[in-house]
Amino acid sequence: MKICLVWIGKTRNGWLKALIDDYLQRIRRFARCSVVEVKEEKGKKVNLSAVKARENKGILESIGHDKAYNILLDSKGRELTSEEFADFLSKRQGDRTKQINFIIGNFLGLSEEVRQQADMLLSLSKLTFTHEMARLILVEQIYRSFAIIHSLPYQK
Amino acid sequence: MKICLVWIGKTRNGWLKALIDDYLQRIRRFARCSVVEVKEEKGKKVNLSAVKARENKGILESIGHDKAYNILLDSKGRELTSEEFADFLSKRQGDRTKQINFIIGNFLGLSEEVRQQADMLLSLSKLTFTHEMARLILVEQIYRSFAIIHSLPYQK
Repeated sequence: MKICLVWIGKTRNGWLKALIDDYLQRIRRFARCSVVEVKEEKGKKVNLSAVKARENKGILESIGHDKAYNILLDSKGRELTSEEFADFLSKRQGDRTKQINFIIGNFLGLSEEVRQQADMLLSLSKLTFTHEMARLILVEQIYRSFAIIHSLPYQK
Repeated sequence: MKICLVWIGKTRNGWLKALIDDYLQRIRRFARCSVVEVKEEKGKKVNLSAVKARENKGILESIGHDKAYNILLDSKGRELTSEEFADFLSKRQGDRTKQINFIIGNFLGLSEEVRQQADMLLSLSKLTFTHEMARLILVEQIYRSFAIIHSLPYQK
């Protein structure tokens, strides 16, 4: 099973980027894992809805060509415990899901077209996080899942 | 109102420490904020319950001498949205609470004596985080609360 993380733009905060990269390395001991950083439009944004449409088109192009299981991070999504999340990933490995895409939007939100591709909406917390913090929390939880599945001591 | 963060031991991960320190600086624009790093017992721990008792005694000594409002981070606690958390902090400022202590345990958990001092149990998420990640998420949310209270653009 391959895990693909899809988000818009690079991680600007260097400390967060270092932490995210560290967890990506750890995840890769257990699964293929790649990051797609969809092109972010920079500069002064006069027409935000057009920017949103183009960025979300980039997301669609990244996820569209495969029979992947698409998980959208969404504040209205399901909240799982870490054990439930590990169980979920383990079941996807069991039913031979080839690829799981985790999709994180930016402050403009995800488009209706992207939402229609969702197999699951996942919420990390009732709290709101910055999108870069959400990236870190997500990769930490994916690694934690593998630690739970493989009974590694990490999860303490 | 003073905010006091009480946890056991230093933040070992340098990137997390840098992020936490950055948020502490930002919080200090709005409130006095200090960190108490209760002495952590290192080395091989033969008697974990004795270690837990001594470390929790350190927490009690840090919070005991004041008429403070004690919030324990606990997986069985209340989950709030960021807006509800900001509203909560704003109300404590309004009712002239002098000090709020946020207390984060370690993998040994918090003792019954510390729990008896709790005015509120707070859960950051259904997910389990490392204790160092919980520190980061907490300080980010405290800063976010002040950004919400003062209508700063951060919370996007």
